[in-house]
Amino acid sequence: MNENLWINSLIDAKPLTNHVAVREAKKGIQDYLASSFFAVKNPNVLALNNEQAIVYGQTETSKRFNLETSHQALVYGFAAHYEDLDDTQSNLRGHPSAVILSALLAVAKPHDAGEKFLDAYISGIEIAGRLGQVFNPTIYNKGWHSTGFIGIFGATAALIKYLNIDASIANQAFSLAASQASGYRFQFGSDAKPLQAGIAAKHAIDAVDWALKGMTGSANYLSGKNGLVHMFDLDENKLQSVLSAPWTESLEIVSPGLWFKAYPFCSAAFRLADASLEIHEKQAIQLDDIESIDISFNPGRDAALIYTNPVNGLQGKFSGEYVTLLGLTKGTFDPKDFTDASLDDEVLANLDKVKRVYYPETEKGLSSQIYVKLKDKTTFHAEVFDPYGSPNNPLSNADIKDKLANGLGNEKQANVIAQTIENLEKNTLKEFLQAINRNENGGK
Amino acid sequence: MNENLWINSLIDAKPLTNHVAVREAKKGIQDYLASSFFAVKNPNVLALNNEQAIVYGQTETSKRFNLETSHQALVYGFAAHYEDLDDTQSNLRGHPSAVILSALLAVAKPHDAGEKFLDAYISGIEIAGRLGQVFNPTIYNKGWHSTGFIGIFGATAALIKYLNIDASIANQAFSLAASQASGYRFQFGSDAKPLQAGIAAKHAIDAVDWALKGMTGSANYLSGKNGLVHMFDLDENKLQSVLSAPWTESLEIVSPGLWFKAYPFCSAAFRLADASLEIHEKQAIQLDDIESIDISFNPGRDAALIYTNPVNGLQGKFSGEYVTLLGLTKGTFDPKDFTDASLDDEVLANLDKVKRVYYPETEKGLSSQIYVKLKDKTTFHAEVFDPYGSPNNPLSNADIKDKLANGLGNEKQANVIAQTIENLEKNTLKEFLQAINRNENGGK
Repeated sequence: MNENLWINSLIDAKPLTNHVAVREAKKGIQDYLASSFFAVKNPNVLALNNEQAIVYGQTETSKRFNLETSHQALVYGFAAHYEDLDDTQSNLRGHPSAVILSALLAVAKPHDAGEKFLDAYISGIEIAGRLGQVFNPTIYNKGWHSTGFIGIFGATAALIKYLNIDASIANQAFSLAASQASGYRFQFGSDAKPLQAGIAAKHAIDAVDWALKGMTGSANYLSGKNGLVHMFDLDENKLQSVLSAPWTESLEIVSPGLWFKAYPFCSAAFRLADASLEIHEKQAIQLDDIESIDISFNPGRDAALIYTNPVNGLQGKFSGEYVTLLGLTKGTFDPKDFTDASLDDEVLANLDKVKRVYYPETEKGLSSQIYVKLKDKTTFHAEVFDPYGSPNNPLSNADIKDKLANGLGNEKQANVIAQTIENLEKNTLKEFLQAINRNENGGK
Repeated sequence: MNENLWINSLIDAKPLTNHVAVREAKKGIQDYLASSFFAVKNPNVLALNNEQAIVYGQTETSKRFNLETSHQALVYGFAAHYEDLDDTQSNLRGHPSAVILSALLAVAKPHDAGEKFLDAYISGIEIAGRLGQVFNPTIYNKGWHSTGFIGIFGATAALIKYLNIDASIANQAFSLAASQASGYRFQFGSDAKPLQAGIAAKHAIDAVDWALKGMTGSANYLSGKNGLVHMFDLDENKLQSVLSAPWTESLEIVSPGLWFKAYPFCSAAFRLADASLEIHEKQAIQLDDIESIDISFNPGRDAALIYTNPVNGLQGKFSGEYVTLLGLTKGTFDPKDFTDASLDDEVLANLDKVKRVYYPETEKGLSSQIYVKLKDKTTFHAEVFDPYGSPNNPLSNADIKDKLANGLGNEKQANVIAQTIENLEKNTLKEFLQAINRNENGGK
């Protein structure tokens, strides 16, 4: 296939004519900031940013690309994904906004048009989602971290739109981004997982910088004989059809859409989370009373949940067993239970009572079920299809603004930020950048 | 397996007791600099370094890790690999020094001990070569670029030794390096190939920086259930045996050793190059007179030579057909024939006359043969096992010093540099860094 076709349709696309897409993008920006603000004062984030508080965007006098630019994208992405509260998308099977918005915010300047920012963001999601259709589930199942590996192309696409990069340089930028495509699932449960979101954002910045400096890469990094599609035994016809689909129909940000997370752990455990809360509403379960628990997945849908016996809360973010025990016993998911602190002995002793079982997906769609059997022979059962936050059961606008206010610890600033985002296509980024850089988030 | 065993043997190793290893390392440093000096004034190298001339090493007052450090490693690696004149190693199936020495030179300070530099370099080659045994030929054949993908671990190992990083942080550094492991063969024949050497050096610097800042990665990035060894269906037992082999026996820098290149193209074409020169000595072939040419490889040994019909000299670096035609007709390999200038029509018209054939490796080892048939029915044949520059037919010390003098365009400075390298384990790096940063190489 001719990879230039893809580039031209990206450059020519006018996604802002899709009003649902614009609405979802505005939610996405709020949710990204909410997820980031929960983490901006975290010691790890400060350490990565050389003990500086985060400041989003560039000043009018910054050079677009200096060494600081890609470093800022790294830090933004790390913070946005640090609590694992940031959005996911099912075609990408990863976290698009943590990569794409981090790259955009690293080059954004106050005088830039807000509509360009929205256009670039929606375009980045589009490319990430479309390539997700081609690369997944293959690369995800093999152990690659889609957020990093595919996300880098989404971020590069966003930068190309935002910076008006022309087609020939855009093609080089994508190829140079491909040179750095990495990110692995073995990092789930460590700092390296959120780092991989930041690394992808940073790599996209570097790729565009190098392309603008005249560096060349192969034009056939996807479909060429040695290209990524063939390296992973993917379907070249699908690549062609997915990338040549018109942008005038449904967009990836609308369908399958973004999943805005209500809980600070892997979305693959969200159905279990809601099922466990449903049971908890009937009866709070005591760890001591548990005889056994079965938790179910559709086959392959627990790939991200790599810890059956987590030893700390960070690993617990990727453990259906841990999430289920928390929901059943506490009825709530507190970010404090998902840190690098070790789990208490009673929790550890009960993890082995939880067993995974697998049921094929039915016509009703993906689901998870929980069967609890207590020592006194009481049983509980719940099944969840569309967990809270998923596209069919989404957070409301008010929920997202609450998330932003909670992340900031400041409802008034959350309202100001939400207002600047609501008006983004009518203004420059000036008010928006000012609002997100107020003292309250740790910035200056 | 326990990945910490590997880290401890790396940290405890004293490779400078192996005198052959030290001798080869000194040749390696000279050859790296020679290869770099050919490229330091290239417009692409200058563009990547933001129009600054390259300056190797840090000042005494530099911070070890600032944003500039990893950028310098990127530029050094790009320059070192730009002409494809830099060393290769057969276990790595790539270019170790371009990655390892670039990372080391980005952190090297004048007061640092020369013996530490040598120790770190040899240790980096050791890890790159050992992991090469485990990962190759699988990842190379699948399309990964070993220089980047495996080289990053070699460079990380070198930095760990050079900077006296302790074992627990060293393990994190390797894991964070793994998060960024990338580099693909589809880039051969573009600027992205040498960039991938620089990217790996840069990634190693970043990984060590992040580990020192306290970032965590999975401890089981190689042998864990989702680790690289399982992602690529590699042999975990081999990983264990290779990594636990004592450092007191032969070292990778000694056996299989480094291959110092006499020609500015891919070493997979070197046997053909020498065979073509051998025929040219009997008779200079005219393009017009050629009826057909067969060139042979042992099966799989032309994987790097991805262009059968190159359109420019950069692609010609990865074309056995182009190299053969040049050797047969010109009897010499001029760097001018390996630039991004388009090939002339007569050369293009004759490329199709060259056909690849494959013969199994015999007891005598790897070889390439050329059969030339002219229109007047004259035939020529040559077979080469150990091409000039390969470990069994190495460049002499004088050859390497000539290469350095040619790269610099200055024989006197080459002698000075060679002298500082000869005495490296007895001194600090001060004289060495001064010598390589004289005006003549474009530095200040």
